[in-house]
Amino acid sequence: MFEFRVSAVCAKTGARAGVLSTPHGDVKTPVFMPVGTAAAVKAMTPDELEEVGAEIILGNAYHLYLRPGADVVAEAGGLHSFMSWRLPILTDSGGFQVFSLAALGKVSDDGVSCRSHVDGAALFMSPEWAMETQGLLGSDIAMCFDQCSPYPCSHDEAERGVERTTLWAARSMAAWEKRRDKQALFGIVQGSVFPDLRMRSALEIAERGFVGHGIGGLSVGEPHDKMYEMLSLLNGVLPEDKPRYLMGVGYPPNIVEAVALGVDMFDCVLPTRDGRTGTLFTPSGRINIKGKRYERDFTPVDPECDCYLCRNFTRAYLRHLYKSGEILSARLCTMHNLRFTIRLAEQAREAITAGEFPEFRRRFHERFHDER
Amino acid sequence: MFEFRVSAVCAKTGARAGVLSTPHGDVKTPVFMPVGTAAAVKAMTPDELEEVGAEIILGNAYHLYLRPGADVVAEAGGLHSFMSWRLPILTDSGGFQVFSLAALGKVSDDGVSCRSHVDGAALFMSPEWAMETQGLLGSDIAMCFDQCSPYPCSHDEAERGVERTTLWAARSMAAWEKRRDKQALFGIVQGSVFPDLRMRSALEIAERGFVGHGIGGLSVGEPHDKMYEMLSLLNGVLPEDKPRYLMGVGYPPNIVEAVALGVDMFDCVLPTRDGRTGTLFTPSGRINIKGKRYERDFTPVDPECDCYLCRNFTRAYLRHLYKSGEILSARLCTMHNLRFTIRLAEQAREAITAGEFPEFRRRFHERFHDER
Repeated sequence: MFEFRVSAVCAKTGARAGVLSTPHGDVKTPVFMPVGTAAAVKAMTPDELEEVGAEIILGNAYHLYLRPGADVVAEAGGLHSFMSWRLPILTDSGGFQVFSLAALGKVSDDGVSCRSHVDGAALFMSPEWAMETQGLLGSDIAMCFDQCSPYPCSHDEAERGVERTTLWAARSMAAWEKRRDKQALFGIVQGSVFPDLRMRSALEIAERGFVGHGIGGLSVGEPHDKMYEMLSLLNGVLPEDKPRYLMGVGYPPNIVEAVALGVDMFDCVLPTRDGRTGTLFTPSGRINIKGKRYERDFTPVDPECDCYLCRNFTRAYLRHLYKSGEILSARLCTMHNLRFTIRLAEQAREAITAGEFPEFRRRFHERFHDER
Repeated sequence: MFEFRVSAVCAKTGARAGVLSTPHGDVKTPVFMPVGTAAAVKAMTPDELEEVGAEIILGNAYHLYLRPGADVVAEAGGLHSFMSWRLPILTDSGGFQVFSLAALGKVSDDGVSCRSHVDGAALFMSPEWAMETQGLLGSDIAMCFDQCSPYPCSHDEAERGVERTTLWAARSMAAWEKRRDKQALFGIVQGSVFPDLRMRSALEIAERGFVGHGIGGLSVGEPHDKMYEMLSLLNGVLPEDKPRYLMGVGYPPNIVEAVALGVDMFDCVLPTRDGRTGTLFTPSGRINIKGKRYERDFTPVDPECDCYLCRNFTRAYLRHLYKSGEILSARLCTMHNLRFTIRLAEQAREAITAGEFPEFRRRFHERFHDER
């Protein structure tokens, strides 16, 4: 049911191309997964997601548990049926949201007492809760419940996070066991930016035989170099025959570097969130459409892009929509940014397969510089 | 270039079916025209507008003059090119917005001094301004600059509005004359709810030989019966061989009654505005999707509807989107309401052509009752 095949490796970097098979279809890696937090990728329809090339999307256990309720989603026939999405879905365990959104109460080895960011209701989250919730959602890939350390944090704090993440990985696996034919489970590696802790976490998680491995606790404020240092280290430790998922990364230069360091899967709200504020990804870097310079710019946002925005509309029109507060601006920008990011992963894959990844990587970085 | 042919008339009511030819294609009447105030029908792409069956849309001279500027639109090649819409466009003259949106200064026979609702800039609007602006926008159908009386208003006030509207109709026509091969001009009838003034306005406007006639100053707060009384009167006065456009009407029961009273064209923000607040049109009346009763309602919004929402999603999912503040809720509800309203006009047309309009009208009113 769940198989990962590496089809090509780069001779000079750690980059690899592969295919991950799931009950709802195959996912070609490297892959960017749009984030559908509340059972919708913001501003997009399922048809449009397929049109921009999405092969897998994310859902969030924490958000969906709170609203509409995992039981409501289950009654609808699971998340695929509820949101009318026919391709694979990966669900986050809620571990990250506990530390970023919820009003924290007590954290112990048992789990986390917190309050809903929606209505303040009390909530107890644990590995068992996370696995039951993801089971009700019926995602193709579930994630272990983990403890994400903030950045910066002390070595001691990060160490306790690693220990708890290992403990919770075992309990997540036990709770998931009965669903192993229908749902894959990924372990998550923590350890902040401490090489010894990353190494320890990777070894402790890898030995449990998960279907794949998430790399958590990065892209939380640390310098890019620190992120790359951790990925480089993990590239030598995580099993090569299993997919590696760098959680929360979507900034294009980070994707390209992480692919070079052996990462296969990515997710991030950046393309969608940036889209809603008029920030657009282009091969030359990010631009913001509200700039006066675009008032009479009757060219497409990105002439190399094949998305609906770039095929039909000009920068001048998009700027007008943005300035007028039109929903269509958020839609078109989101669609473009997703297409750009998904296509970047596709292009990386093609380059790896053609044995040209180092050249692709060099050319990408030469061109990409955010607008000032 | 601009031709209107009546293809069928109802034997028992004033309803008629027709075709209005324009430089950007034919429009089958009765027709509902979605409102694209700021060069976009809110939340919709041009492709989706065609998908819901829109054959003509509206733009607003006042809004587009202020933002992005009629000159910017002209430089883009006109409104069709600017917003990537290939079918006909009708533009409002700005007359209505003067009285509804702008901070009014002085109104005289010359025109209207007012302040922009966007940035407070001073603006002088006149028949000549309205015709030049609509010329720059390049719409297929332009509207005369008129003075819309509020409801309620005195007979004297309404009479001054009628006199000024007639005066401005003559100046609008003179300013438009040089564009008559490219753009049609519709006159507008005013007169509030006073039969003698409506009659006078209709006669004064009709004698000028406009391509079609707008009926303004209705649906501004008066009882429905008053609206129908005015339409009934105008049905006997306005030339039968020219299209009649009831401005600002989109509530389904009003559309059906107005068709029975000889109206051919409609526009209104109601379907789009209602959509953004989760109010949906159904054959049984309007419902609001936020109701708790829809939490586990896994049926479509309207099983008889062929729109993307009704074909793919449930009420429970839509309620969840609305409660979560997802843009997708506004999109799907808008799309459905537009499809419902456009289809209502299509169904009326089919009924007229089949000689079954009275039965269609009876059945519609039997079923349609807004949710309480």
